[in-house]
Amino acid sequence: MAGVRAARPRAVGRLISLIEDGSTALPEIMAALAVDTGRAFVVGLTGPPGAGKSTTTAALVRALRARGERVGVLAVDPTSPFTGGALLGDRVRMQEHALDPEVLIRSMATRGHLGGLAVAAPQALRVFDAAGCATVVVETVGVGQSEVDVAATADATLVLMAPGMGDGVQAAKAGILEIGDIFVVNKADREGTQPLVRDLRSMVALAEHPVGAWKPPVLTTVASDGTGIEELLAAVDRFRAHQERTGGIGLRRLGRAQREVEALALAVLRRRLREQQAEVLDELGRAVRDGRLDPYAAAAALLGRLPTG
Amino acid sequence: MAGVRAARPRAVGRLISLIEDGSTALPEIMAALAVDTGRAFVVGLTGPPGAGKSTTTAALVRALRARGERVGVLAVDPTSPFTGGALLGDRVRMQEHALDPEVLIRSMATRGHLGGLAVAAPQALRVFDAAGCATVVVETVGVGQSEVDVAATADATLVLMAPGMGDGVQAAKAGILEIGDIFVVNKADREGTQPLVRDLRSMVALAEHPVGAWKPPVLTTVASDGTGIEELLAAVDRFRAHQERTGGIGLRRLGRAQREVEALALAVLRRRLREQQAEVLDELGRAVRDGRLDPYAAAAALLGRLPTG
Repeated sequence: MAGVRAARPRAVGRLISLIEDGSTALPEIMAALAVDTGRAFVVGLTGPPGAGKSTTTAALVRALRARGERVGVLAVDPTSPFTGGALLGDRVRMQEHALDPEVLIRSMATRGHLGGLAVAAPQALRVFDAAGCATVVVETVGVGQSEVDVAATADATLVLMAPGMGDGVQAAKAGILEIGDIFVVNKADREGTQPLVRDLRSMVALAEHPVGAWKPPVLTTVASDGTGIEELLAAVDRFRAHQERTGGIGLRRLGRAQREVEALALAVLRRRLREQQAEVLDELGRAVRDGRLDPYAAAAALLGRLPTG
Repeated sequence: MAGVRAARPRAVGRLISLIEDGSTALPEIMAALAVDTGRAFVVGLTGPPGAGKSTTTAALVRALRARGERVGVLAVDPTSPFTGGALLGDRVRMQEHALDPEVLIRSMATRGHLGGLAVAAPQALRVFDAAGCATVVVETVGVGQSEVDVAATADATLVLMAPGMGDGVQAAKAGILEIGDIFVVNKADREGTQPLVRDLRSMVALAEHPVGAWKPPVLTTVASDGTGIEELLAAVDRFRAHQERTGGIGLRRLGRAQREVEALALAVLRRRLREQQAEVLDELGRAVRDGRLDPYAAAAALLGRLPTG
């Protein structure tokens, strides 16, 4: 634990590997770390492929480092066999920050992990938090629901888009309005930037905003040369101040903690079903496969056999 | 139920909507349908974006219709806010088959659904099965783990790729070898086809194949003009015959039924945690948020309060 608190990259990396592996030592380790958590501000960064998320993350890290902050980066890789996941992650990303001891970088793939991202990502955030990172940027490489959920439950969620991405983006806007605290049109030196900005602004304007509520701004950046990054960070600061003033930050963190506890509890239950009820599940599976029993009745039978406590 | 058994598209569509909504009527409906299931052969089709999955699905449906079969298509859309999901689904896909009463098409998005795809997709397959579809093609539009899992648990899993897709495909090969029963290099009129075919073949050759085991073939298609589709269907037939001869089909369906039962049971448990334990979860969440309790201890406390049965 001393190595994690001292923000030694190897100690941090080893602990996150234990999390990915679902190590049985985690309850004890996390109990020891709990008192050191709750200080980091978590910035979630999400958006469609090609919006420039990695470049924007790197630019944000540069700006945060210029403030003298220790920064953590958690790149949530797609848990899909079609992307390479964490294989690519740590190596090609963020090379400029690779030698900076005040930047802790980790990509996380959770293929096969019991409970998946919903369990692993919050634990990894705790580790960065305990390691003294003032800000942790969570970048979702994947765009599956579980990946996006991680960004959406951050203290501040940035939704990144880029001009010229076609219909997919158009169709998606309804879904992203609810999760974005700040919208960013990146690659803003390209054609199509202004229409996209206008479009997003009018959608934000049309959404219901109670008096005193935060109205998500729509900013433009060219992350590759740093244009607009200071303004983006300033917007994050304004949002943070707003959330601290209104108590919104505490509510959001409560929701995150509840989801974390729920996901851990469900992972335990899943393990119990698989390990303690393997024979029952096998028998019920046969009955369902052969049409002798419907799956809901089988699920009820399985639950009837589950011991609690 | 009569409408579903008669394969009336509206009845089928309505029932799948109930599944997406997690209707409380489902246990009863599925109990009534159970005896009518177990006949359809499920073909999973997955691959990276741009490989031509929708076009290939349409071509496969055309070939199956030429055999006189009733065909079902379940398009599993990404449950991501960045894709538009089922918004696009039913309308733009498969237009040529839209008026054929013997082709039942449905896209499914499960954003927010308790238990997600792991619960909803198997139920939707049951509906197509009960509606008398001889073959159901499950096309995964998304490439998140849960979407790919649906294809990977089919009776036959086709993994589709296309030349010129760059490093992502390279890095992915390790992950897809284990799920593909048949590999398809689509868009095979493009440059780079032969190197990709060779590459895939040598990876398949290097993998361990016990005596008598199925060795996944690597085929080429140009789905847009139908080239290679008959050969692809013939390979599916060969695989099916192999699986029936070796009993592999029964084992795979047993695994699918077990996962289905497990997912339904976990969805029930999740609902119990949320509904019956809302106050406890709120209190535990506060303790975790404020660093007074670690999440593992909170999860254990939550489970201690969970009634069974």
